[in-house]
Amino acid sequence: MNMQPLLNESIQQITGQLQNWRRDFHHFAESGWFEFRTATIVADELHRLGYSLKMGKEVIKAEARMGLPSVQALQEQEQRAIKQGALVQWLPHFSGGFTGIVATLDTGKAGPTLAFRVDMDALDLDEDQSHVHRPYTEDFSSCNAKMMHACGHDGHTAIGLGLARILKQYEDQLTGKIKLIFQPAEEGTRGAKSMVEAGVVDDVDFFIAIHIGLGIPMGELVCGNGSFLATTKIDVIYRGVASHAGGKPEEGKNALLAAAQAALGLNAMPRHSKGISRINVGVLQAGSGRNVIPDHALMKVETRGETNEINEFIYDKALSIIEGAATMQDVEYEIQLMGAAQSSKPSPAWVDFIYQQVQQHVPELSSVVKSGEQAMGSEDATYFMERVKANGGQASYLVFGTELSAGHHHGQFDFNEDVLAIAVKTLATLTIHLPDFNTQFNQ
Amino acid sequence: MNMQPLLNESIQQITGQLQNWRRDFHHFAESGWFEFRTATIVADELHRLGYSLKMGKEVIKAEARMGLPSVQALQEQEQRAIKQGALVQWLPHFSGGFTGIVATLDTGKAGPTLAFRVDMDALDLDEDQSHVHRPYTEDFSSCNAKMMHACGHDGHTAIGLGLARILKQYEDQLTGKIKLIFQPAEEGTRGAKSMVEAGVVDDVDFFIAIHIGLGIPMGELVCGNGSFLATTKIDVIYRGVASHAGGKPEEGKNALLAAAQAALGLNAMPRHSKGISRINVGVLQAGSGRNVIPDHALMKVETRGETNEINEFIYDKALSIIEGAATMQDVEYEIQLMGAAQSSKPSPAWVDFIYQQVQQHVPELSSVVKSGEQAMGSEDATYFMERVKANGGQASYLVFGTELSAGHHHGQFDFNEDVLAIAVKTLATLTIHLPDFNTQFNQ
Amino acid sequence: MNMQPLLNESIQQITGQLQNWRRDFHHFAESGWFEFRTATIVADELHRLGYSLKMGKEVIKAEARMGLPSVQALQEQEQRAIKQGALVQWLPHFSGGFTGIVATLDTGKAGPTLAFRVDMDALDLDEDQSHVHRPYTEDFSSCNAKMMHACGHDGHTAIGLGLARILKQYEDQLTGKIKLIFQPAEEGTRGAKSMVEAGVVDDVDFFIAIHIGLGIPMGELVCGNGSFLATTKIDVIYRGVASHAGGKPEEGKNALLAAAQAALGLNAMPRHSKGISRINVGVLQAGSGRNVIPDHALMKVETRGETNEINEFIYDKALSIIEGAATMQDVEYEIQLMGAAQSSKPSPAWVDFIYQQVQQHVPELSSVVKSGEQAMGSEDATYFMERVKANGGQASYLVFGTELSAGHHHGQFDFNEDVLAIAVKTLATLTIHLPDFNTQFNQ
Amino acid sequence: MNMQPLLNESIQQITGQLQNWRRDFHHFAESGWFEFRTATIVADELHRLGYSLKMGKEVIKAEARMGLPSVQALQEQEQRAIKQGALVQWLPHFSGGFTGIVATLDTGKAGPTLAFRVDMDALDLDEDQSHVHRPYTEDFSSCNAKMMHACGHDGHTAIGLGLARILKQYEDQLTGKIKLIFQPAEEGTRGAKSMVEAGVVDDVDFFIAIHIGLGIPMGELVCGNGSFLATTKIDVIYRGVASHAGGKPEEGKNALLAAAQAALGLNAMPRHSKGISRINVGVLQAGSGRNVIPDHALMKVETRGETNEINEFIYDKALSIIEGAATMQDVEYEIQLMGAAQSSKPSPAWVDFIYQQVQQHVPELSSVVKSGEQAMGSEDATYFMERVKANGGQASYLVFGTELSAGHHHGQFDFNEDVLAIAVKTLATLTIHLPDFNTQFNQ
Repeated sequence: MNMQPLLNESIQQITGQLQNWRRDFHHFAESGWFEFRTATIVADELHRLGYSLKMGKEVIKAEARMGLPSVQALQEQEQRAIKQGALVQWLPHFSGGFTGIVATLDTGKAGPTLAFRVDMDALDLDEDQSHVHRPYTEDFSSCNAKMMHACGHDGHTAIGLGLARILKQYEDQLTGKIKLIFQPAEEGTRGAKSMVEAGVVDDVDFFIAIHIGLGIPMGELVCGNGSFLATTKIDVIYRGVASHAGGKPEEGKNALLAAAQAALGLNAMPRHSKGISRINVGVLQAGSGRNVIPDHALMKVETRGETNEINEFIYDKALSIIEGAATMQDVEYEIQLMGAAQSSKPSPAWVDFIYQQVQQHVPELSSVVKSGEQAMGSEDATYFMERVKANGGQASYLVFGTELSAGHHHGQFDFNEDVLAIAVKTLATLTIHLPDFNTQFNQ
Repeated sequence: MNMQPLLNESIQQITGQLQNWRRDFHHFAESGWFEFRTATIVADELHRLGYSLKMGKEVIKAEARMGLPSVQALQEQEQRAIKQGALVQWLPHFSGGFTGIVATLDTGKAGPTLAFRVDMDALDLDEDQSHVHRPYTEDFSSCNAKMMHACGHDGHTAIGLGLARILKQYEDQLTGKIKLIFQPAEEGTRGAKSMVEAGVVDDVDFFIAIHIGLGIPMGELVCGNGSFLATTKIDVIYRGVASHAGGKPEEGKNALLAAAQAALGLNAMPRHSKGISRINVGVLQAGSGRNVIPDHALMKVETRGETNEINEFIYDKALSIIEGAATMQDVEYEIQLMGAAQSSKPSPAWVDFIYQQVQQHVPELSSVVKSGEQAMGSEDATYFMERVKANGGQASYLVFGTELSAGHHHGQFDFNEDVLAIAVKTLATLTIHLPDFNTQFNQ
Repeated sequence: MNMQPLLNESIQQITGQLQNWRRDFHHFAESGWFEFRTATIVADELHRLGYSLKMGKEVIKAEARMGLPSVQALQEQEQRAIKQGALVQWLPHFSGGFTGIVATLDTGKAGPTLAFRVDMDALDLDEDQSHVHRPYTEDFSSCNAKMMHACGHDGHTAIGLGLARILKQYEDQLTGKIKLIFQPAEEGTRGAKSMVEAGVVDDVDFFIAIHIGLGIPMGELVCGNGSFLATTKIDVIYRGVASHAGGKPEEGKNALLAAAQAALGLNAMPRHSKGISRINVGVLQAGSGRNVIPDHALMKVETRGETNEINEFIYDKALSIIEGAATMQDVEYEIQLMGAAQSSKPSPAWVDFIYQQVQQHVPELSSVVKSGEQAMGSEDATYFMERVKANGGQASYLVFGTELSAGHHHGQFDFNEDVLAIAVKTLATLTIHLPDFNTQFNQ
Repeated sequence: MNMQPLLNESIQQITGQLQNWRRDFHHFAESGWFEFRTATIVADELHRLGYSLKMGKEVIKAEARMGLPSVQALQEQEQRAIKQGALVQWLPHFSGGFTGIVATLDTGKAGPTLAFRVDMDALDLDEDQSHVHRPYTEDFSSCNAKMMHACGHDGHTAIGLGLARILKQYEDQLTGKIKLIFQPAEEGTRGAKSMVEAGVVDDVDFFIAIHIGLGIPMGELVCGNGSFLATTKIDVIYRGVASHAGGKPEEGKNALLAAAQAALGLNAMPRHSKGISRINVGVLQAGSGRNVIPDHALMKVETRGETNEINEFIYDKALSIIEGAATMQDVEYEIQLMGAAQSSKPSPAWVDFIYQQVQQHVPELSSVVKSGEQAMGSEDATYFMERVKANGGQASYLVFGTELSAGHHHGQFDFNEDVLAIAVKTLATLTIHLPDFNTQFNQ
């Protein structure tokens, strides 16, 4: 059956709403673990559509959250969200930094479980507020300081909601179960693990995560992006003893020197013969006064590896270096895990299926490629992918190209919103045609 | 002639005023280069007493000021001072960070020129606001955030004004000229050099700088403190190039690593066989984001030496190290001079004279000693001392002991105000008896 | 025409001689730039066969030699070579470290120029002298201390001489010119550049360099090894000022600290997003006495890169780091170039040709592959390859598998000598069939 | 009784012998723990004079020896000594590095025990062999490579023997006991502790150690040199894992980097407010080949402090730094104690006594001073001094000035031998007049 004309019409009907959602989320940008307003709006919409919802602690394992802000900051931001229109009836679910939602559509018919994951958080960045920036001139630039959707997650959330509408509309054509996962705190790779640890993809057979942009041109789809580096993100704190640098230098224990030794040691780590490795000390803050032996230091560190094995090698080396530097200066140290992601390759058969279906059914995508260029970034969707694959399922990561006004993580980032409808149509199409997967591959 | 009974009575008459002044300055504490309110009150009092005044740019060489705040901060603080009662008729003299005053009493009689120097600035510190702290319970604790008189300069300024009153009263007994120097920005050793470079002690034959406290007990006077370390205080800024640490590490130029190498190199500087040397990197702040090659770094550094020669040795070494670290990481660097002081020994004959006069005429001082214990701090009064001595004059640094509620630079610092009257009496006595110096020493 | 039976017979006739040569060179192992005895024997043999010879300064550009031993060492080793049977009539050509030979066979017929390059030097290594080691039990282990053929260059030289005999025998079948290049000092990648700079391959259309072993099994040929890393090898010398560490620490200029800072900085260099990069400080020797500020330091450093561009990036960074560390300690420094090699990919058409010819004509090679596994080593044959390719020629690097008794550069290294005859046959075959290259590729 | 004329004559009689001894020891210079020949000659002379001898293990505690050479080196040097005329009948006492002697003269009369300590070892230095150097032109320069008396211990030993002769001659005038201590391995401060731990000064009431030269002019005596820095001398060995720097960098554990981090950390140690501190990494040797991750490193380190407390502070800091650097690179480490000395001040009453006696009885000394200038060196005689003082005795360190041809530890060091007789006379005089000490001080 050729569903194209019908589907095209359905998509057209929600195109305006996709833009409205995206711009609303953009205007009220909320960074990681603070997505209180966003989450209530998402929950409300999905509930009204008739999805079965799990939220907050049901889908987020508390102790697996990484890089969580302070209790005070969480409370302040929840109040901020209320003032900005968060739907208070949903708020208790998300309170305290549990801003995740899993919506399930059970068709009642036999069939596999297919999951889509989108992320909802903004970056810790001030948005450009000038006349060269469309979100400003068209009045939807961020109203929150140091929070900006400069990576496109506002679009991802809109796509997730649009997909929810369309799938509900076509429920009769579908089989098995569909799960829509709305994840918090992807930036800094902090949130995915807590949802995976809560088991939200343990029953999933097919998995898709998406991203827009990433340098891919409008009209192109990458069916299986697999160049993500495994990563671990830590904060290192050294605590020494202050003393007057002129009068009693010998009474000090110098946390700044420990950090300096560690920063050098970390960068001086050996390369790895099996692939890409990275280490960075991105931030170092130490000391309080010019004439005081510095008694505290903070380093923001990240390791990366082309494989989980390489990242673990780098991370283990980092632990020794950090500890050794503390011993050298006789200072205390603490390591806080702030984020992590894995390396993950998409399932080849699943990529092939997506490639074929899209070429056949989504003419809006003028270019379809199986794998993208090496980007050397990290993504915590990899936790979902690895879990699904470990259970025998199929997983992939799709990139929908779109024009960008500036690079990701830039204060003038914006994108061509036409990509939203294309993405919804593509994901709906794959859902509708999923039964063909077995026909094609399992004979 | 025995002036003691008369002088004692005069002193007693101003004791209440000494406390009032001290507590007023304490309440409206103003840190270095921001002494707008204090300076206008000092100027007004001295003018009313009939002193001839030089102020602002007349007594401060603009380009010799060190550690000057930003133009914006200077303007904001001037507005703050106005709200807190600065006398606006005097403000134009001090606007823009020229908060120094030199008041001259010319007796019209032949005689040498004697100068006293007091300092007026507070520390960048929050004052304790609790019931254990007298300034709080007696309602004169600082009303300005991050500004507190925790070193006693409020007392020094009060002593200066009290001395002005007494000397005016005894003008007939005096010969030659008396100069009262009110200096800004002693903390961080930033202000003295600019007054010396403006020539304010070029005509001075005898010079006295004072401090209260410093661990000396109430009732004791140190006539010639000479244990100051020469010091240079600099901010070092490295500027590199940011790049994505995962995607393009080779495009970055790492300012954080330059600073880490420099911090190690600075601390690893050789010791000096001729005396005490010190080096400290008290603050290091570098980088912006965990996943970005850090493109900037700031270090707050100070060198010290038992002699100017040693301090210069350390400082010259520091310059090479800072430059070399920049070369290593191919980053730009800038060094900003933030403060400096010299080492200086008091003039022995002058100390002997003070010692004898005080023993003879100031029974309130139960203990009089010629030199104090090694403190290993720094003081920019040394610039005045060295200039006076270079011109053939006599210079010393007096410490008046007093009880302290907490150490200098502590949020609960306070002192026994009885020291104020004792100091005024002592300095007045020395002024009155100055003609005896020649009798004693130059025969 | 099927030349196989005839060629097989010719090869069989020289098999004993191949072993004799190899074992003679092995016994009198000579390390880089000391190949005096080897070179005279090679020259004599080639001359007797009727090749036209260029030797010494004719084929080696003096100032392009890297890692040259001292004049004294060169003289001593030349005397050593004479005692060990060097043919003194040829020695003047090679005296002073010019131990290279190029032998040309000009067929007088039109045709391209084909060059083969073999290397002659041993490693700076003591050979195992025990009963588990065949060269010892069969009496051909090295008689020179710290010199051992532990990489197989003895075999390469034997192959070169064997090939010379065969080609002379089949001269009538050949066209164009054949050049046999015997290179000194490949270990440390020190010699090739000096021959290339002397122009010895400027007229070459087809080029082959060979290696035996490298973990490839007996009977296998890799037709186009291209995994060599570009490399630069330098010695860094810091010169400071000594002084008594207790009595006059400030008078010293610490070369050891400069080297320590540099070693850390070098290892802390950024990774490169475009491929493999390496940096190593393999040796650091500094200082003279425990109580003396160290006035000299030596570092042996090497950089490597997957491409010449990456290696140059690393090398340029290294220069800044080395210079900056000198500035930090106010010491002098000197950098000596000790070796270098390039990255180079084999010419695809030439590899295809070799692959087809060998499969067709050399049944002794049971396995023929086009490219080998990533080894991450370096080879200065790459200089020849890049020059030939730059002139429009074809170049490749062949690896002949053979059994090894221990890994390359190990004191118990030995190999199955059957590989010698196989290699000679293969290279002769390629020479005879070279005219087919045009037929195959240039139509 | 005026003993001067008689004593002068006795001294004159042995002046030639003093020179003979000194030149013999100089010619057969033996460095620390290798003083086999010297010790047998000393023992033989003292035995012939009638002293009661304790030798070798009786006076040296084996496990308290520091910086002992290898067993093989000790054996080789013992053989060398035999060839050079060591008296084999005495050799068994000293075999294995027990080259110390204590000779006692018990007068049988009541009285205190007075001990003199001299040292016998040469430096690890090649002596200048040129016509500008008197020991060479007069044929007594060292015949042993890397062993030279460039510090004057040859003279000290001669003085000890001369004193032995004179005291024996004047035995009737003496009371109590006299002990003559001949110590090995003072250079590197390695030997004294082992003699003190063996108890050789546990019964001593008065103690004198001596040195000649040290920049003091001929004819001057320093009666109480007390400027010695406490010191600890260690060798630090790091052991990592080698691997190919190009092929398997991640498999290495980099001992060179551990040493580089440690060297920086050691030099970057805090200064001490209570006095002089010193740290030096005098030697660093690491790695084996340019392309190998370095698997071993050696550092020769020394700490010094104006007091034992400061030296211990520095040493404890050093231990943490050395350990921390090992942890950073995940390498093993070992610390070997190579030498140590204490700080020690001479006993004031004893110095006063010496000062008075010498002024009265030794006119050859034209200048007598109580204390010398700060030298900032170290001396292990301090172990004897501290032990004697701890037991309630009196101890001092005398320096006899003499002309030097070059500084101590220089290859052209030589001294004016007139000092030998002056020193013997001075020490004999003090011994004879010792009974006056009580008269003077204990009344």
